[in-house]
Amino acid sequence: MARTTFAPVTDDALALFTDLYELTMMQGYVETGHTPEATFSLFFRDLPTDRGYVVAAGLEQAVHYLEHLTFTDAALDYLATQGFGDAVLDALADFDFSGDVRALPEGTVVFPDEPLLEVTAPIFEAQLFETLLINQVGFQSLVATKAARMREAVDRHGDDQTIVDFGSRRAHGTDAGLKAARAAYLGGVTGTSNVAAGRAFDIPVFGTMAHSWVQSFPTERAAFEAFVDVYGDESVLLVDTYDTVGGAETAAAVADERDVDIRGVRLDSGDLVALSKEVNDIVDCGIFVSSGLDEYAIADFLTDGGVATGFGPGTALVTSKDAPTLDPVYKLVAVERDGELAPTMKLSTGKVTYPGQKSVNRVERDGRFERDVLAARDESAPGEDQLVDVFEDGDLVYDLPGLDASRERARRQRERLPEGTRALRDPDPYPVDVGDGLASVTESLRADLAAEYTPE
Amino acid sequence: MARTTFAPVTDDALALFTDLYELTMMQGYVETGHTPEATFSLFFRDLPTDRGYVVAAGLEQAVHYLEHLTFTDAALDYLATQGFGDAVLDALADFDFSGDVRALPEGTVVFPDEPLLEVTAPIFEAQLFETLLINQVGFQSLVATKAARMREAVDRHGDDQTIVDFGSRRAHGTDAGLKAARAAYLGGVTGTSNVAAGRAFDIPVFGTMAHSWVQSFPTERAAFEAFVDVYGDESVLLVDTYDTVGGAETAAAVADERDVDIRGVRLDSGDLVALSKEVNDIVDCGIFVSSGLDEYAIADFLTDGGVATGFGPGTALVTSKDAPTLDPVYKLVAVERDGELAPTMKLSTGKVTYPGQKSVNRVERDGRFERDVLAARDESAPGEDQLVDVFEDGDLVYDLPGLDASRERARRQRERLPEGTRALRDPDPYPVDVGDGLASVTESLRADLAAEYTPE
Repeated sequence: MARTTFAPVTDDALALFTDLYELTMMQGYVETGHTPEATFSLFFRDLPTDRGYVVAAGLEQAVHYLEHLTFTDAALDYLATQGFGDAVLDALADFDFSGDVRALPEGTVVFPDEPLLEVTAPIFEAQLFETLLINQVGFQSLVATKAARMREAVDRHGDDQTIVDFGSRRAHGTDAGLKAARAAYLGGVTGTSNVAAGRAFDIPVFGTMAHSWVQSFPTERAAFEAFVDVYGDESVLLVDTYDTVGGAETAAAVADERDVDIRGVRLDSGDLVALSKEVNDIVDCGIFVSSGLDEYAIADFLTDGGVATGFGPGTALVTSKDAPTLDPVYKLVAVERDGELAPTMKLSTGKVTYPGQKSVNRVERDGRFERDVLAARDESAPGEDQLVDVFEDGDLVYDLPGLDASRERARRQRERLPEGTRALRDPDPYPVDVGDGLASVTESLRADLAAEYTPE
Repeated sequence: MARTTFAPVTDDALALFTDLYELTMMQGYVETGHTPEATFSLFFRDLPTDRGYVVAAGLEQAVHYLEHLTFTDAALDYLATQGFGDAVLDALADFDFSGDVRALPEGTVVFPDEPLLEVTAPIFEAQLFETLLINQVGFQSLVATKAARMREAVDRHGDDQTIVDFGSRRAHGTDAGLKAARAAYLGGVTGTSNVAAGRAFDIPVFGTMAHSWVQSFPTERAAFEAFVDVYGDESVLLVDTYDTVGGAETAAAVADERDVDIRGVRLDSGDLVALSKEVNDIVDCGIFVSSGLDEYAIADFLTDGGVATGFGPGTALVTSKDAPTLDPVYKLVAVERDGELAPTMKLSTGKVTYPGQKSVNRVERDGRFERDVLAARDESAPGEDQLVDVFEDGDLVYDLPGLDASRERARRQRERLPEGTRALRDPDPYPVDVGDGLASVTESLRADLAAEYTPE
């Protein structure tokens, strides 16, 4: 039997949320006394389908991880059973992050090859973080981006409608439910249906009723009456259990009978555009629409004349269903040689990585983002570096702005992008130039490595 | 600032991992004194693309949830801030599952409309579970199915190759990393790279080395030498950092020089078929292949003559990338009327649900599964019911078989499916008939509801 059947990743367990090879290499670093300073960069190589930008998210969790991760005795005992020796176990028992982190603040828009996060520390430390940092920052950035696109659909075609994350049940596990709610809020939705997420992150929580409420009463009318008797003008009645138009008529009749201005009705199936128009002629309250919504469906609903005061996307939001990964990576970009951090890269086919520490310079004109320059950190390049210092010598030096401020940042950043880059389909590529210094380092390093390693 | 930045869903937090509307309805049930006995069924409506079957998984976590969920004072305090009143808060403080659960054992193959799980309890209790049960059972079943398809690819075209889950970094949060590792093992992979999952679920843990190890040394040769000096014949050397064939030659030279039979080399980029053949001519050890693998890529690699002793799928496995959801639902199918559980259904367009408690009867011939009969629980239908009693009156009556036994069940079940249903592309539909009793109840209930609710 398993030791635990639910296995929540608590602070005590964060250290082991890593791939075995990180620990294998760390033992190798200890046993060979090979402990150079190193910089790892977390970035993605390509934008997912139809995305013109990505919204960075998850830094707060990355910070928590770096501050709290610790190898407990129980963790070390387990590693001993997996063949790890005393030298590395002693080093792990003393593990304490001593390095530097630079990162994009949450809510910053980011493009391929730009670091969301750079860790500089002895390789024994920095190696460990790969799995969890990618896991948290990658997933939250994915969902924040999806949410920003839903907000974009409403900004373009709607009237500032409410958007609520309804996806927890379809999220990939409990952490995804919580972090998707957080990231979606950051990216631009109004709140979540997930109570645990509401509590953990102070996100507004929303909910209506399910078909089960309606079916559990002898008639739909009895179900609506009972609900209105409890919730009065806060009531949102689900009207599609048996027949949407009939349900809306019953909702209106019950509201009238009880003399209550109900908050709304919810539609969850059928031809949503046509039904929402019919229902709007019947009720005098909000109309909340759910059922298979994504940014495309929301945009189409609005441009086709659908009537709604709110949307409840679920699966598509929390799984980023049309593109369920950013494919982010965490790559060694610099390593200490002769006492200095030297750029490094690999030559693997199709997977070239820009070497060295970087700056993500953003060039503005008239308050709009015009282009980025991905530059070597030590070169002078146009624009302003978006990376901020988060840790210095293991100390947190960044004042985490909190979720609402990051959400506001995401909104402002999105609004400053070129119109075409914000398009929901076939967006215009945002220009990311490579700084002269970075281009030159990349070229000379590539040539050196090719000369050394390419067979004749 | 958020109360907690990582927010692990520990036992204390399980109760709040629910959608607000469940609690809203529960307060309504309490305040109206409407507490009928109810049966909810967890099922999915359609097979995802190219899937001929789904492997049920996650029951162990569902059981843990039902046994451990509790509303702590802190949880109740939060709910009070969200407007919940004393009556429901008192009822939640005393929450203790008192009902029955029937479920498909983990590893059972399952088809659309068949319940993976049926909960029968006072509606005040059964309503709450929707979000978390779908979340856990849905996700694990999705990944177990993906893993079974990868094992199928190897069974059909390979030679019993090792398959290791390398996906934790791309999983949707930490719980997904752990539960994907568990579900993938259950579905047929050999192990995982995730150390926390290995520890939590006693799954074999595997790992090799990353490009960072190679790059951190002055030369690839020095990196290989250092690794072999630490790990000897357990070494698996990553050979594609600079040039795959050259790397393989260096690996072979280092093994020769150190007089060590290394365990293997790993290829992570490029034309994997061609490179694996070239590398196989150079090294005398295992060849481990990673990089963008899914069941199709594994099948193609093997049929195209690629040479490998193991595969390391990642993103596609843990996100079920081509179909990142089963879209499972948890629907009220029966409710107490006049002291008896009566079948119920909704009529929403395109979302019809079979009413009532069910049996999932499987008909066998010559040791093979021939067809299923989805039947009303109280009707006599051919075949043997696959649902087992898990809880009776709130007591666990099911002896959880453990992960290895469930994994073995998944393998045996898959092998008993018709060959065409196991195909990786365009599988033959497996016949699921609807029992006469269920068909008749469905038809008469539909007619009754349509007569009552369809506008003239």
